[in-house]
Amino acid sequence: IKEEPVYWNCQWLMLRRVLCTVLFMGALPSLAEASQGHISVVLLGATGDLAKKYLWQGLFQLYMDQVSSGHSFTFHGAALTALEPGQRLMFDVLKKLTCPPDESPNRCAVLKDQFLKLSQYHQLKSAENYTVLNREIETLLRQEGLKEAGRIFYFSVPPFAYTEIARHINSSCRPPPGAWLRVVLEKPFGHDLESAQQLAADLTSFFREEEMYRVDHYLGKQAVAHILPFRDQNRQFLDPIWNRHHVERVEIVLKETVDAKGRTSFYEQYGVIRDVLQNHLTEALMFLTMELPANVSRAEEVLQCKLQAFQSLRGLDKNSAVLGQYQAYASQVQEELQKAQDYISTTPTFAGVLIHSDSLRWEGVPFLLTSGKALDERVGYVRVLFKNRAYCTQSETLRDAEHSQCKAKQIIFYIGHGALNAPAVLVSRNLFRPVMPEGSWREAVGQSDLHIFGQPLSDYYVYSPVKERDAYSVLISNIYHGRKDFFITTENLLASWAFWTPLLDSISQQPLRLYPGGVENQHLLDFEMESGEVAFTLAEAVELLNPNRLMPSDYRTIQSKFRQSPLVSAWSEDLIAQLASDIEKIASRTVARSGQFHLALSGGSSPVVLFQRLARHHYAFPWKHTHIWLVDERCVPLTDTESNFFSLHNHLLQSVRVPYFNVHPMPVHLNQRLCVEEDRGTELYAKEIVALVANASFDLVLLGVGTDGHTASLFPKSENGLEGAQAVVLTESPVKPHQRMSLSLPLINKARQVFVLVLGKGKHDITILLSRVGHEPRKWPISGVSPSSGQLVWYVDYEALLG
Amino acid sequence: IKEEPVYWNCQWLMLRRVLCTVLFMGALPSLAEASQGHISVVLLGATGDLAKKYLWQGLFQLYMDQVSSGHSFTFHGAALTALEPGQRLMFDVLKKLTCPPDESPNRCAVLKDQFLKLSQYHQLKSAENYTVLNREIETLLRQEGLKEAGRIFYFSVPPFAYTEIARHINSSCRPPPGAWLRVVLEKPFGHDLESAQQLAADLTSFFREEEMYRVDHYLGKQAVAHILPFRDQNRQFLDPIWNRHHVERVEIVLKETVDAKGRTSFYEQYGVIRDVLQNHLTEALMFLTMELPANVSRAEEVLQCKLQAFQSLRGLDKNSAVLGQYQAYASQVQEELQKAQDYISTTPTFAGVLIHSDSLRWEGVPFLLTSGKALDERVGYVRVLFKNRAYCTQSETLRDAEHSQCKAKQIIFYIGHGALNAPAVLVSRNLFRPVMPEGSWREAVGQSDLHIFGQPLSDYYVYSPVKERDAYSVLISNIYHGRKDFFITTENLLASWAFWTPLLDSISQQPLRLYPGGVENQHLLDFEMESGEVAFTLAEAVELLNPNRLMPSDYRTIQSKFRQSPLVSAWSEDLIAQLASDIEKIASRTVARSGQFHLALSGGSSPVVLFQRLARHHYAFPWKHTHIWLVDERCVPLTDTESNFFSLHNHLLQSVRVPYFNVHPMPVHLNQRLCVEEDRGTELYAKEIVALVANASFDLVLLGVGTDGHTASLFPKSENGLEGAQAVVLTESPVKPHQRMSLSLPLINKARQVFVLVLGKGKHDITILLSRVGHEPRKWPISGVSPSSGQLVWYVDYEALLG
Repeated sequence: IKEEPVYWNCQWLMLRRVLCTVLFMGALPSLAEASQGHISVVLLGATGDLAKKYLWQGLFQLYMDQVSSGHSFTFHGAALTALEPGQRLMFDVLKKLTCPPDESPNRCAVLKDQFLKLSQYHQLKSAENYTVLNREIETLLRQEGLKEAGRIFYFSVPPFAYTEIARHINSSCRPPPGAWLRVVLEKPFGHDLESAQQLAADLTSFFREEEMYRVDHYLGKQAVAHILPFRDQNRQFLDPIWNRHHVERVEIVLKETVDAKGRTSFYEQYGVIRDVLQNHLTEALMFLTMELPANVSRAEEVLQCKLQAFQSLRGLDKNSAVLGQYQAYASQVQEELQKAQDYISTTPTFAGVLIHSDSLRWEGVPFLLTSGKALDERVGYVRVLFKNRAYCTQSETLRDAEHSQCKAKQIIFYIGHGALNAPAVLVSRNLFRPVMPEGSWREAVGQSDLHIFGQPLSDYYVYSPVKERDAYSVLISNIYHGRKDFFITTENLLASWAFWTPLLDSISQQPLRLYPGGVENQHLLDFEMESGEVAFTLAEAVELLNPNRLMPSDYRTIQSKFRQSPLVSAWSEDLIAQLASDIEKIASRTVARSGQFHLALSGGSSPVVLFQRLARHHYAFPWKHTHIWLVDERCVPLTDTESNFFSLHNHLLQSVRVPYFNVHPMPVHLNQRLCVEEDRGTELYAKEIVALVANASFDLVLLGVGTDGHTASLFPKSENGLEGAQAVVLTESPVKPHQRMSLSLPLINKARQVFVLVLGKGKHDITILLSRVGHEPRKWPISGVSPSSGQLVWYVDYEALLG
Repeated sequence: IKEEPVYWNCQWLMLRRVLCTVLFMGALPSLAEASQGHISVVLLGATGDLAKKYLWQGLFQLYMDQVSSGHSFTFHGAALTALEPGQRLMFDVLKKLTCPPDESPNRCAVLKDQFLKLSQYHQLKSAENYTVLNREIETLLRQEGLKEAGRIFYFSVPPFAYTEIARHINSSCRPPPGAWLRVVLEKPFGHDLESAQQLAADLTSFFREEEMYRVDHYLGKQAVAHILPFRDQNRQFLDPIWNRHHVERVEIVLKETVDAKGRTSFYEQYGVIRDVLQNHLTEALMFLTMELPANVSRAEEVLQCKLQAFQSLRGLDKNSAVLGQYQAYASQVQEELQKAQDYISTTPTFAGVLIHSDSLRWEGVPFLLTSGKALDERVGYVRVLFKNRAYCTQSETLRDAEHSQCKAKQIIFYIGHGALNAPAVLVSRNLFRPVMPEGSWREAVGQSDLHIFGQPLSDYYVYSPVKERDAYSVLISNIYHGRKDFFITTENLLASWAFWTPLLDSISQQPLRLYPGGVENQHLLDFEMESGEVAFTLAEAVELLNPNRLMPSDYRTIQSKFRQSPLVSAWSEDLIAQLASDIEKIASRTVARSGQFHLALSGGSSPVVLFQRLARHHYAFPWKHTHIWLVDERCVPLTDTESNFFSLHNHLLQSVRVPYFNVHPMPVHLNQRLCVEEDRGTELYAKEIVALVANASFDLVLLGVGTDGHTASLFPKSENGLEGAQAVVLTESPVKPHQRMSLSLPLINKARQVFVLVLGKGKHDITILLSRVGHEPRKWPISGVSPSSGQLVWYVDYEALLG
């Protein structure tokens, strides 16, 4: 609302302690309006970098915006510095506050003067300081006869100080009942899940969830803040296309040209993932991937959808990321942190991470999060690239270039800097003309020579904010309005750390690609996706760590004999690849011959990598004609995470198309109870085998070996299943869960093919032992595997074979 | 092999009937070489268009190539024309035979002279004509003392003549034992599956499969013929990327500038799909999608893989294609076929068809087949476009333009014409440098200003044939060499017709988009993919047929009451959309409330469209938390096509990710027998329901109605399941299969929500009846549906409601 300049009548109460009551000249507001109550803003860390650069300016903006809201304000800067020097420092900052270009200079000058008078400095160090502050606020309010509306405490301090300050505020500075407390917290909020949980627990003991406003200043960036409203207001256009069938990829990028110089003491502990990806880019990711709540301005609904979106994210591992470090970083760290010359930093300054959501909406769509320091340009954007779904019959040379459906289709939330050097929302003209809120965004014109993401700017509808607002101004305004949807709740924060922590753990020793910085980086940091993983495109240049690791050419497959049977041996990754491909070959041959392929699979951890390999690399596998049987099962419900079938389901069956009818879990769970003999689960399974598998002779049985020589669920010193006519047996395992169901040794030995997979150093001793002993199934059940008319092949990795 | 010119000593045996025995001057071949035997080539339709344009030239090329192979040849032109005029016509053609540029003029002139002398004309009309021809060949061979190697009969005649000619050849012109017979057949091979089967059956009664060479001249196009060898020779590069994870789309295109003028008598019967897509483009499609056999030159292996690839193709329906007709076509037909002025042709001259393969390799990859007459350019190509899997960190302006991974990656088999005006194989340089057979393909250079598919030619490795060969020359050479892999076997042909016929049937009354022809078409024929269907991008311009069909704005959803319960009514497509979206809403709400959603689904045909809609349009559906139950089942094995579960599996479960544990088929098949009371399947199912579904109260039960008023498998005049405590019952249906299992009415009425879906004119009578009757479950079981504490909603389409 545009208004006439207003003038203020202020009362000085104490030296440099000011409180203004609001009296309007000209159009006088009613006192009822002024009686909305008083708000005290306490900025902790009032003389720090963030306060200097953004926060005071944001508070001044709040004052300008809300001066006639009916609230009265005081602003309390606080720091550890003593009163006199602190005051000086703070007022040096305040004097430099600038007037926004859209404000009349006269009004601004007057308001700035008032703002200065409403602001005071406090030293906040001891418990007593806080008590004094509280008393002063109370006294002022009482003297002025003002009702207290609320208090804002803005923590612009290092995280180690949080708990202490929180305790003081909670014990001494809470406003009286009826007035609210809002504490504003700045990142970092921990450095992994555990520390974040700890910090959250600490804070929760002092503040209620609704009192905490955790800042991610990206949520105040106008383009980021507009993602959800954009999705909401353009539902009609986006509903049909905002999914895996239409979206080709999403890029969420923050590139910086600066490096970490001068900030290494912070940066060396955090690195680019904690600094940028875990928070800023992840929040943008959530705004894109979450299901849209019915009402996007209800914080609670948004939060629930966001948490659900977190749940759908596929877990990350070291192959989900490419990492780099600019060359000068090491010496900067050595210098600034006084490290020795041979100190090696493993902190990434560049990261590209590939994220997948397993939701039905996004399955298979790559989300690429990228950020780095010392790159070639400063720019931030969220880019949604749609698939080209058109075929243009007219030849290229004759196409109307303007709106052809064969041109790229994208929606870009341009956060700032870069070629546009301003926040913007861009929508390809061949997509749709977006609905934008008229008051806050307007269509931009001109600059048609600019190219953005491969297309001239004229190919897009371009919108920019009517008023360009700094992120902190936006956020401070949202704190004032109690808009919690612009802040990070505890649940949200922990969900994000839960997602990122496994990656952070797994890459702590990852090699980093060194890059020179700036335009010199050339293609060094380009990377590519492949089967859900990422890798740098260019062959290794200089790698920092692990110079000793083996090169692919060092891997080799040994073919020889083990226990008189063929042996295939290699490093585990190659071994699994070989095994998967051998299984596919047998499957195809068998299906060609008999129309079906009966495959019996073991539980345990070794087959998991095989399952994943089969799911991701074997497109020609005849799954439609494959029957899946279990070699053994634990007596737990099939939905128990301990169940072999559950693991098989998660790692293989969910990704391939084996018909429901061809899947044969063991019936360990009958009549609502587990492996009870009289339920005859073993007989049932044996009958099913006899009914479907010719001669009860599986085409392929995959076995493992335990360190005690057990195989399937046939254990040493146990009679069951080693001989006799029973095809399926109940057995006892020495480890929990004790009860098992298993194919018997005689049934296994009827198979046309048996593969035994042995992986890892832990299996070296049993491997050596087995290479020496004969047929002694009672001691080592695996030694009894000897197909009567089929073939046995051993797949043993180098670690198991050579130790 | 380059040779010195050779000279011939020929003997004239009869007037204009020539047989030359081969005697070499200069380097004389041994007689053993000449004794490979004699080959008689009989060209039926020797004076027709195809013969004039391609076949005689191809036979001359064969002669030039094989003159020193050791075989001797005679060439017999044949037609219905009497001897004298026929001879004249034929020799007019022969005189115009040209010498290929890579042949020495001298040698060619001599060879042409010989070729003329070796060629003679026959009138082949009556049975006797064939007997005479046979006798002549035998006499010549005997007189010359030549062993017969084989006979080639080339059918360049209209298809109606096939059977007659085949009968004569079979009865009178078979070569003696030890010599082969090859009959070469030209398309069309029928105009749908049935006619193709008929023709194939006819031919099979005269010829063995290995004697028939069905020509698809596309298989002689050098770029098409090289697809399989290319895949074979570049396995190392293609293996990781030749799949749905890397391929974005495939375009198989044959655009023509000419129209059908002068050929409408043929064209009007066939249209573009039969003329080009069913054969030429489909063959190219198969070469791309089939799994690669171990040996690509073994015709039998290739055929098996091809047939498998056909099996994987998803069925087409009318929404799989966009169809057009150039404006002048109608008047051309009226004129050439003497049709009335108001005659409307429904023959498409343009088609764009979207094909999907359901193989694991290609699932989800769109294959676009496009062809048309009167388009803006003449060009043929097969284009495989790969996904961009790279993220280029360096900003666009700074990228090394040459080989950036962010540039498009494609492999193009350029069939001919167009910008390149020659066959070629193009591979993007950022993909790989392909292995090409040195003798037949060489790297092309120059012409860097040309742009192909959005990129300068310099972005590709470009290969062109060392010797450009006409398709018929290639094919005739392959007939001579017995390379059956270049021809269409009966199985292949029928598989292709089986695939295309349903589309052809369904589009016979489809509206055609009229287009002006040439560059004037502009964007009229551009089309887009959406959920597995295609549609023209531009809104309807002029549609030829069905001007009366309803426009979307005419559809409307009626909300009112039916039998005291809410009624939703609309045209069936909209009704299904509404129902699916209502189900999703309930599912999401229920999962949010209780963590699970228990959905019981009916069998029958109506739900199939619903299943498909749910599978294709509802990405946010919480399948992971949904349990699927059956309302009723037929007593057949679950894998029987009659099984309700089988249908549910095919149309829904295979496409979404319901965990295995959440799928609950009815146990109609226990102990290897069907619905035997003492197996207690009904109790088992009831127990499962009680164990998993709170209060045995399903969240949603979807029912249908039979014309007799039955619902679930509860039938009129049957006691079972209408009341009592039994939750699941065995019942008898009046129609086969009689035995059924069904949820009981009391159980259904415990549900929180019951939806009844009624679709189609056939249900109009029962709908009207039901609107009038009260609660009489014994007469009409559906009238007993009345949830005790849940809600009942009727979804009835206009056809059922309004008749």
